[in-house]
Amino acid sequence: MRARYKPWADDYLRENEDLVLFSAAEYKGRWREVISQEHPIHLEIGTGKGQFIAGMATQYPDVHFVGMEVVKSIIVSAVEKIAESDLTNITLLNEDAQNITSFFADNEVDQLYLNFSDPWPKNRHEKRRLTYSDFLEQYQQILKPGGKLVLKTDNRSLFEYSLVSFSQFGCKLEEACLDLHGLADPTNVMTEYEEKFSTKGHPIYRCQVAFPE
Amino acid sequence: MRARYKPWADDYLRENEDLVLFSAAEYKGRWREVISQEHPIHLEIGTGKGQFIAGMATQYPDVHFVGMEVVKSIIVSAVEKIAESDLTNITLLNEDAQNITSFFADNEVDQLYLNFSDPWPKNRHEKRRLTYSDFLEQYQQILKPGGKLVLKTDNRSLFEYSLVSFSQFGCKLEEACLDLHGLADPTNVMTEYEEKFSTKGHPIYRCQVAFPE
Repeated sequence: MRARYKPWADDYLRENEDLVLFSAAEYKGRWREVISQEHPIHLEIGTGKGQFIAGMATQYPDVHFVGMEVVKSIIVSAVEKIAESDLTNITLLNEDAQNITSFFADNEVDQLYLNFSDPWPKNRHEKRRLTYSDFLEQYQQILKPGGKLVLKTDNRSLFEYSLVSFSQFGCKLEEACLDLHGLADPTNVMTEYEEKFSTKGHPIYRCQVAFPE
Repeated sequence: MRARYKPWADDYLRENEDLVLFSAAEYKGRWREVISQEHPIHLEIGTGKGQFIAGMATQYPDVHFVGMEVVKSIIVSAVEKIAESDLTNITLLNEDAQNITSFFADNEVDQLYLNFSDPWPKNRHEKRRLTYSDFLEQYQQILKPGGKLVLKTDNRSLFEYSLVSFSQFGCKLEEACLDLHGLADPTNVMTEYEEKFSTKGHPIYRCQVAFPE
């Protein structure tokens, strides 16, 4: 996702430090001290403009959602959206998925979401795909035993690749859907991209896997 | 697949006993005595009118193909097709997949194919789907350790179901393709049904899994 350079982004994020953590690494292993003990932590990698995480946080008030988004000029849109709402169960991180284990200790996360991640279609970029085995290793580390990952994408090749990558890693497939909007799942919360894309009639793919214990 | 009742089918199959085995259970554990030791055995469950198996046998002369088809009035078309050809690496069985372990001993089969199997869409018919766990158990039994299964279908629900069923059984996904003809794989041999269906522009799904050892 591209966005115009926003010179005011840094200041804006600083002003919303309660929502966007600036020293996220300090939270590693301490998330439970910060948020309610009873609330599971669901992490979205690549939160974009925040429509999904805001919708999910509204739908599941007893879950604490953490959204990671590396692009500053994009995460500001998520901050704006959430700051305007009454939602208190969201934390954002302006960080790179590469460093995910710097922000979460082993078993600290209950569930993961990957929504419309960059497909990196070229073979030589395989390692950058967020479902490449190196990433799966990191996810397994921060997820509680048997933790789940839910992936949505409109990119057929990324979906095919991810199904194989999950399986080879030892994840168990719990759900596969090759036409999410044909299913008309009333609990599905759409991302901005998904909304735009699915109105054109293209299929959206979704799967849920459980990591090996 | 439905076919007209063919009162002459019994006699016709008897006339081609070299191609269609009548006492297939006698072959159990003895397939290697009948066919060449060096040729792997690939089994198609639901051979229909035989276009796939004939095409595969032509393309892979060093593989012995066994086709199972329970419907007599359909398997006669496969017999006609193969009898007219010069192919010697095909054997047909007019038998039910339910009884597969009556015809093959443990580890006797190298690879399995399921092509456009009946999707049995109703939940209460789940056990009849050829990728239901009870069938997978039988496949694992007759397949050599790490043996593979290749599935093709145009039925989205059956494909979604099968991916989950394979994964829950412990199979490893080696390939997933959500638009086989978009891929233009030159080695793909089409079934009659596939040919008819894909010309209408509907996607064909394919996956390959390896059974747990």
